[in-house]
Amino acid sequence: MINIVKIGGNVVDDPAALSGFLDDFARLKGDKILVHGGGKEASRLSRAMGMTPQMIDGRRVTDAATLDVVTMVYAGLINKRIVAGLQARGCNAIGLTGADGNAVPAVRRSPKPVDYGFVGDINPNDINSSLILRLFDSGMSPVFCAICHDSCGSLLNCNADSVAAALARGLSIYEEIRLTYCFERPGVMLDINDESSVIPLVTAESFARLREEGVVAEGMIPKLQNALQSASAGVDEVRICAASALLGDGGTIIRRQ
Amino acid sequence: MINIVKIGGNVVDDPAALSGFLDDFARLKGDKILVHGGGKEASRLSRAMGMTPQMIDGRRVTDAATLDVVTMVYAGLINKRIVAGLQARGCNAIGLTGADGNAVPAVRRSPKPVDYGFVGDINPNDINSSLILRLFDSGMSPVFCAICHDSCGSLLNCNADSVAAALARGLSIYEEIRLTYCFERPGVMLDINDESSVIPLVTAESFARLREEGVVAEGMIPKLQNALQSASAGVDEVRICAASALLGDGGTIIRRQ
Repeated sequence: MINIVKIGGNVVDDPAALSGFLDDFARLKGDKILVHGGGKEASRLSRAMGMTPQMIDGRRVTDAATLDVVTMVYAGLINKRIVAGLQARGCNAIGLTGADGNAVPAVRRSPKPVDYGFVGDINPNDINSSLILRLFDSGMSPVFCAICHDSCGSLLNCNADSVAAALARGLSIYEEIRLTYCFERPGVMLDINDESSVIPLVTAESFARLREEGVVAEGMIPKLQNALQSASAGVDEVRICAASALLGDGGTIIRRQ
Repeated sequence: MINIVKIGGNVVDDPAALSGFLDDFARLKGDKILVHGGGKEASRLSRAMGMTPQMIDGRRVTDAATLDVVTMVYAGLINKRIVAGLQARGCNAIGLTGADGNAVPAVRRSPKPVDYGFVGDINPNDINSSLILRLFDSGMSPVFCAICHDSCGSLLNCNADSVAAALARGLSIYEEIRLTYCFERPGVMLDINDESSVIPLVTAESFARLREEGVVAEGMIPKLQNALQSASAGVDEVRICAASALLGDGGTIIRRQ
C-alpha cells in the first residue's frame, strides 16, 4: 500500500501546523509520498519583488518572472524545509520536482481560452512510476512540489491537487493507493458551521444528491469531483480530512468503485 | 569511472555559456555528477528583498533570511533550470540538495572566530555514497547545489567547491574519480595575460615551487590546495579548466599521488 498525502497553504504557511504534520507524516508506515502546495509565500515574494500576483479562477497566471518565483518558493524554500524537517524526524525524504528524474512530465496548457502562461497539466499515464518505486525500494519518501517540466527545457507550474491525483492514478497499477487530501476542515460537512457534521462516505450517487440539494459548498465541488474521478480510475481510497487527522480515521472517504 | 564537474557563477550567470555547457555535460559518457554554485542571482534577490549581502573572505554570511534566499535561488531556481535543461538534452538529471535522501550531511561551522551563520562544512566520510551509486544504477545524473543540512532540521549553506571535493573523495572508495573544476580561465596560467601559458600538470612539489616564485595568483592558491588535497586523498584526477573545455583535454591537471 502506498500513502500519498497532499498538504496545502493552511499547513505550509503555519510553522506549528507544519511541524505537527511532519511528526505525523514521519510516523506513517510503509511507502509514502508527500505533495505540497505553495501557500502564500509565492505571492509574498512576488510582491517583495515588485510584481502583482494575478489569479484567474484560483489559478496563478504564470509569466516567466512568476515561474522563477514559484520555482524558488515551491521547489526551493518550501520543499527543502520540508525535506530537512522530515530527515530530522528519521524519515528519509527526497524532494523532487516533476523535472527531477523526469518524475512527472507535464504538457503546457493551451493559451486558449485563458493564457495562464507557464502552467502545465499532467497525464497520469506519463508518471515515471519506475523511478518512484525504485526510491521506495531504497527506503526513501519522495516529497513533490507542483513544479513540473515539458521535457523540452521549460519548467511548468502545475496544480498540487492534480500532481497528487496523477501520482495516485499512475501508481495504482502497481499498488493499493490511499490518497489523502489534507485541508482546513475535518472533511466534507453537511453544515459548514458544525464540525460534527462530517459526511463519512461519499459515492458518485450521494455526491449527485448532495450537489442537487446544495449541501456541498462551491469549493468542495471540484475537490469531490477530483476524488471521485481518482476513485473511478483505480485509486482505492481518497480521504479528505484535516492535516491533524492524518494518523486518525476521521474525514470524508471516497472508495474505489 | 565517475565524472564530477563543478561550475560556478561564470557559467550559471550566462545563459549562452550555461546552454553550451549543458550540451557538453549531457554528452559526457558514463556516471556523472554536476555541482553548481549560485552566482550573482542570490545577491540580486537579496537586494531586491531589501537585504544587503554580506561577504567575509569571499564567503556569504548566512543569517536566517539569507538562508531562505540561497535555498530559493540555489536549490530552486538554478538547480531546477539546470535539471530541466539537461532533461531536454536527454540526460536524466535529478536535482538534489544535501538534505535530499540525506545525500550530503554537513556540520554547522563554529561561530568562532567568525560567525558565518547557517554555513556548514562537510566530512567526505559522511557522503551518502550508496544513494548516489543507486541513482547511477538507475541511469540518473545527480545535480547538486551547495545547500546541505545538519540532520536536525536546519539547512546549511555550504561551499560548492567543497561539496564537489567531498563527493569526489567519498566516492573514490568505490570508483575511479575525475573531478573537474570549470572556471573562467583555461587553467592555471604562468602568465595571467597569456592564455597559452596554461600549466598542464601541477604536483605538490611544483605547486610549492610556483607558490614560492609567486607564479600562482592569490585566488588560485586555495583552488590548487583543494585539488592537491583531493588528489592525495584518493581522487584520481582533478582538472581545472574552462567550462567550454569540458569535453576536450586542456586545462591544468593534478593527479593522484
